[in-house]
Amino acid sequence: MADTLRTRLPESASCAALGRPASSQSVPEWLSHRARLSPERPAIFCDNDCLTFADLDRLVAATARGLAATGVRGGDRVALLARNGIDFVRVVHAVTRLGAAIVPLHARWSAIELARVVRDCGATLLAHDDANATTAASMADLVPATQRVPITTLAEQHGGGRDEGFGPHLECMNLSRVHSVVYTSGTSGTPKGTVLTYGNHLWNAMGSALNLGLRDDDRWLACLPLYHVGGLAILLRGVVYGIPVVLHERFEPAAVNRDIDEKGITIISVVSAMLVRMLEERQESHPYPPSLRCVLVGGGPVPHPLLDACARRSVPVAQTYGLTEAASQVTTLPPGDALGHPGSAGKQLFFAEVRIAGKDGDALPPGELGEILVRGPTVTPGYLDLPQETEAALRGGWLHTGDIGYLDAEGYLYVRDRRDDVIVSGGENVYAAEVEEVLCSHPAVKEAGVTGVPDTLWGERVVATVSLRDGVHVSEADLISFCRSRLAPYKIPRRVRFAGALPRNAAGKLLRRALREEHQRS
Amino acid sequence: MADTLRTRLPESASCAALGRPASSQSVPEWLSHRARLSPERPAIFCDNDCLTFADLDRLVAATARGLAATGVRGGDRVALLARNGIDFVRVVHAVTRLGAAIVPLHARWSAIELARVVRDCGATLLAHDDANATTAASMADLVPATQRVPITTLAEQHGGGRDEGFGPHLECMNLSRVHSVVYTSGTSGTPKGTVLTYGNHLWNAMGSALNLGLRDDDRWLACLPLYHVGGLAILLRGVVYGIPVVLHERFEPAAVNRDIDEKGITIISVVSAMLVRMLEERQESHPYPPSLRCVLVGGGPVPHPLLDACARRSVPVAQTYGLTEAASQVTTLPPGDALGHPGSAGKQLFFAEVRIAGKDGDALPPGELGEILVRGPTVTPGYLDLPQETEAALRGGWLHTGDIGYLDAEGYLYVRDRRDDVIVSGGENVYAAEVEEVLCSHPAVKEAGVTGVPDTLWGERVVATVSLRDGVHVSEADLISFCRSRLAPYKIPRRVRFAGALPRNAAGKLLRRALREEHQRS
Repeated sequence: MADTLRTRLPESASCAALGRPASSQSVPEWLSHRARLSPERPAIFCDNDCLTFADLDRLVAATARGLAATGVRGGDRVALLARNGIDFVRVVHAVTRLGAAIVPLHARWSAIELARVVRDCGATLLAHDDANATTAASMADLVPATQRVPITTLAEQHGGGRDEGFGPHLECMNLSRVHSVVYTSGTSGTPKGTVLTYGNHLWNAMGSALNLGLRDDDRWLACLPLYHVGGLAILLRGVVYGIPVVLHERFEPAAVNRDIDEKGITIISVVSAMLVRMLEERQESHPYPPSLRCVLVGGGPVPHPLLDACARRSVPVAQTYGLTEAASQVTTLPPGDALGHPGSAGKQLFFAEVRIAGKDGDALPPGELGEILVRGPTVTPGYLDLPQETEAALRGGWLHTGDIGYLDAEGYLYVRDRRDDVIVSGGENVYAAEVEEVLCSHPAVKEAGVTGVPDTLWGERVVATVSLRDGVHVSEADLISFCRSRLAPYKIPRRVRFAGALPRNAAGKLLRRALREEHQRS
Repeated sequence: MADTLRTRLPESASCAALGRPASSQSVPEWLSHRARLSPERPAIFCDNDCLTFADLDRLVAATARGLAATGVRGGDRVALLARNGIDFVRVVHAVTRLGAAIVPLHARWSAIELARVVRDCGATLLAHDDANATTAASMADLVPATQRVPITTLAEQHGGGRDEGFGPHLECMNLSRVHSVVYTSGTSGTPKGTVLTYGNHLWNAMGSALNLGLRDDDRWLACLPLYHVGGLAILLRGVVYGIPVVLHERFEPAAVNRDIDEKGITIISVVSAMLVRMLEERQESHPYPPSLRCVLVGGGPVPHPLLDACARRSVPVAQTYGLTEAASQVTTLPPGDALGHPGSAGKQLFFAEVRIAGKDGDALPPGELGEILVRGPTVTPGYLDLPQETEAALRGGWLHTGDIGYLDAEGYLYVRDRRDDVIVSGGENVYAAEVEEVLCSHPAVKEAGVTGVPDTLWGERVVATVSLRDGVHVSEADLISFCRSRLAPYKIPRRVRFAGALPRNAAGKLLRRALREEHQRS
């Protein structure tokens, strides 16, 4: 399937040019269409800039010309390493307009981690912003075949293009065309690229609108990293809905609170840890304005004390369960439903189906815990170049999330646990295997077990237990520092315990629950 | 292409049963999915009844079992002859749930007209409500191969079924599957069935939501006949959006005005003539409540005096241009935009593209009059069993509407004229050829020309000019009465002029403009 996925990436082509009727699978190219429909409406607020949809469309056209001049063609993959900002946005739209797929890179990953992804997806070009110039440069030897291009040079070197018209672009988008490849670390510790089509993103946007509603005055604040599917989804929804995205370079509670008051934010996407800090930063006597109609909280279950605080302070929390493989939201509990179903992640969106499966794959009745399966047009066609993982994840036509939960009799989803080899810290997924692999590469370490323990702010924090080789010694601080040079900051164990041996069952399988309990006791 | 369309109607099949993954072209069956998501929300208000989505789903399941027991199978076509009411609604959903296509019949057509449609689509079954029992009975000899079934017997004879669970139904819908075949008279006077897929309807619903917004408290009043695409679309939107439809059996201005006040109607679909009567019925001193956020006016351009009256009385008019072949709305001018663009039908919806074409088919620049073309996933795959008409209408991948208009520089559409052989009276299309054919079938008539003249209430009214055979005579009243037995009331000429010959050009083509001018002068 991986080869199929790879070779299926189609060449850039205009429906009209081919003389084919736009099929029922095609819709007009969203940004240029939106620019024709709502040219003067604001599309992006970022720092002190405001771009209308017409501005954005022109900037994207110029960027697309710049990319085409560097040799980008339909069917290519282009890696993007950038902070949240206009540069990120314009490259996403320009790459996809050329019929190439965008591969957003995790800006907190190390050069080694990033290079692995760039090689894995076969990116012909790496576009980076100024803030990531050093990292991009340090990748040069690791990915010699990939051209590195500063984004700032893309529009400039081709005349700025603000007044040159819309330039080359797809007139219409086939919904099965690949839009993006979004990487996660993968359970085995090697990176795994989730292929997302235009259809996956579009059906997700439509399902979210049906669930949360859509108003003329909506403004969505994006302070999540755009390289995450949850951030990327906001960008695309803004275009589909024709509403402005208020883009923050990073999450700063005071700045977010200020914009909610002053910029008429109606929706904001956060993870629990961010919401905690927003509430801390704000006086209880200073309520959020009624214009804020939805605080979408993803990245893991929302702790009950936080839900209580939100109820007390009239914060319209919408808990959501989502994942990269379904282009973000799968279930969402709208604010009006929150009090009646505390702790639930809500019901499936209109274009998704959720099922709870037992060990044999059969659907379980309400109330019974099992694996969460997802089906529908928002679900990925598979992982890039990973036929076995794709087959396994999509067996029987259902996405097997590996997450554990149950549906109540009314169909509300309760997520009880991510699978036990994934730690969710501040909304980031940390795969235990990847951290264990790094720890085991230290000469003193014989074996390592990594797990998460509850953390009031981050949901979970990463901890490790290691057993050392006979006769050698290493300190906790040294091991943490060893990890720091090889892993993104959020993956680094906060604590390392030493043990003679790791808890394992008879078959030798690591017992992560026991590992976790030892950490919580000590 | 007609054969293809016919044979393409697929058998009823469940995605899950086939073990196939739900493709990116499939979405969950909308009504059962909506019933799971919002079981207790009201779905339909009709007379004094209120059905929740769970109620409606159970009723539809029982109706589907009843239909299956009469022999309806996936791929069949089922004709439906009913007033606006619960019976209409449940048959639409039950037929499509079985994988059959619904063919709503125009309740104002004569038995002869109706029988022609039933034969044309090869309907195996005609479901009718009590009000249409006589008409259905009178069709018996005309369509002997078609089973006639009163809708009231459908759920009853199979146990009522309100508590029998959801019954047999499709778990998911392929978007290219045929949902309905909606008939218009056709320019040649023979009926023409427009095939509409699930995808056509769904993309239309989504495009409308993106344009008009979607709110939790939305309630859509349907007083248009449901057998029209504009009425049918409201039913389907209600399910997709999860909002109630307030269903009126017929248009009564006082009842509509009362429900707007008392039932919190937020959106209503009407044609100009209906809106005129609503305003007449209501005191100017009695403003419409602010909850009414959108009065969607279709079925032809809205006269300027009416727009002025709406502006004066703060009626939130949304002019729309739509047609059966695009599953209803193509362009819509949201209420906020109305004053800046008087007389415009607005911009294309997000999932539609509009182009103005000259005689050679090339796109014309802004401001120039030409034929209105439409493209996108809301456009029909074609006419049932009419390969040549389908080819002609969809040549080059664009739907050729035959309507005349222009786009301004900003992309707002102005419809100047329906094609001159179509008269739009009270939102109904009357094809001149059909009326001419009936007139010419009178033994005294040599030739007949039919056209429309402006009417302050109905937009246009039908008028005719005939020349008689030598030596025979017939009165105007006799000719009108002759038409009355053969045509639906709205198609009957209000006036018949007699002339020695009809105005024709050198090639013998009837000059309808001259015909119209003669009627307006006399």
